[in-house]
Amino acid sequence: MSLFLGIDGGGTGCRAVLADAQGRQLGLGAAGPANISIETESACANIVAAARAALDQAGRGNLDELTAVLGLAGANVTASARRLQAMLPFRHTRIVTDAVTAAAGALQGTDGIVAAMGTGSVFAVRIGDETRQYGGRGFLLGDEGSGAVLGRALLTEALRAEDGFAPMTPLLRDVLRELGGIEGVISFGLHAKPSEFGIFAPRIVTSGDPAAERIFAAATDQIREMIEVLQQGRDLPVVFLGGLGAHYARRLAGLWDIRPAQGSGLDGALFLALREGV
Amino acid sequence: MSLFLGIDGGGTGCRAVLADAQGRQLGLGAAGPANISIETESACANIVAAARAALDQAGRGNLDELTAVLGLAGANVTASARRLQAMLPFRHTRIVTDAVTAAAGALQGTDGIVAAMGTGSVFAVRIGDETRQYGGRGFLLGDEGSGAVLGRALLTEALRAEDGFAPMTPLLRDVLRELGGIEGVISFGLHAKPSEFGIFAPRIVTSGDPAAERIFAAATDQIREMIEVLQQGRDLPVVFLGGLGAHYARRLAGLWDIRPAQGSGLDGALFLALREGV
Repeated sequence: MSLFLGIDGGGTGCRAVLADAQGRQLGLGAAGPANISIETESACANIVAAARAALDQAGRGNLDELTAVLGLAGANVTASARRLQAMLPFRHTRIVTDAVTAAAGALQGTDGIVAAMGTGSVFAVRIGDETRQYGGRGFLLGDEGSGAVLGRALLTEALRAEDGFAPMTPLLRDVLRELGGIEGVISFGLHAKPSEFGIFAPRIVTSGDPAAERIFAAATDQIREMIEVLQQGRDLPVVFLGGLGAHYARRLAGLWDIRPAQGSGLDGALFLALREGV
Repeated sequence: MSLFLGIDGGGTGCRAVLADAQGRQLGLGAAGPANISIETESACANIVAAARAALDQAGRGNLDELTAVLGLAGANVTASARRLQAMLPFRHTRIVTDAVTAAAGALQGTDGIVAAMGTGSVFAVRIGDETRQYGGRGFLLGDEGSGAVLGRALLTEALRAEDGFAPMTPLLRDVLRELGGIEGVISFGLHAKPSEFGIFAPRIVTSGDPAAERIFAAATDQIREMIEVLQQGRDLPVVFLGGLGAHYARRLAGLWDIRPAQGSGLDGALFLALREGV
């Protein structure tokens, strides 16, 4: 009997779902991070651990019988994806980016655009069985409108305000106080990971502070322009995912056919695994 | 007899100049990097080595007789500056940022604004004997218009162009080819130091490429606005320093009284040391 495995892996953890050929769920598993561009070996170990846990829960099957689709952060670095592919024990393995599985899960069979707005950001356009990723180029050079990029913009604005280059606002004053003034902000910026910059994002999208509002309005404009480019004059449905997704959806309501997600990235990985055939 | 020491230190090296109370130069010295916010101990060792070399060349004097002013990158992190101050062997030590000594050197006795546009960027306003630094908050959160920030903007634009979010241009195509496509650009961005991003700056300010022109025009606007804030309606002379200084000076010619620098940051450190008195 054929068994199908979906894996959803990223910087914080990886999850596995096992199903039969009819898509009936047989087991779930979870393990540590699986960002393959940073640590391929430990990503591989965690993926296998999550798959084993799903097999254990199902009470049947072996690793080398599985048809697996893995949606992984960092899979756009194809050298790492090739290395991982060679290391994995599954019968058939396909590695795609987490954006591709997120799109498959969110849209299931339909065409559309997915905008995943979390600590990072990435876009995917699904037409027929083809999904193409756009953006998602990382904290320093991309990830437009993401929580980490919004947080960085807030800290930049706080430093500019302290120097008189931008108006001081209550939120900027709070941030400067919380981080210990200019030096504290600089020191935080030297050591913080993207997720730590992202800690400021909820206040940026909800506080109504003038500086936050300016930053979020500029980001919303940028995301609107990017989605317009991806639409290419079409009127594809748009699904916003991630912690900030609902905030962008609210700001951009009415521009396109904005829909809720049909399923998760893990659902999407399994959906694609089932399509890989036996 | 009183001896005065000026030190100019940064991420690539540190230089020392020794003079008598009349400002007559007695000796010069040089040693390795002195960015105190990163490595205070080795910065201290290099500063002392540069000072010893200047004393050797002069053929007289001891470290504990010197009245020293040190202009150092990273001196705005005052905890590091305090630690260094306690470690140094000079009779009298004053630590200021390299922006303060650059301003003192560039303007000598006169009031004015200094805009140092190199790999990083920083501004200083000198009025009477008071010099205040603005900006210079580092690659990630500040350094507006700097070579590193321009380079990062070029790479961001190259990734956006490859995704169709921005127009492709000859320079963007060259950069993508040189770095190995999207993946190469992302990988470069993950590991490159600010100085490595800055390698692209000369092409941005001279190529005439449409993308480069857009990036440099936006940076020039930003620098113009910042200098207007610093002018506060006054008409202070403006000195542009650093590898990109001449390019900004040319773009902004006619807006203010733009002047060449009177002297270097090392000259400025000695100028300030002589003012410290005996």
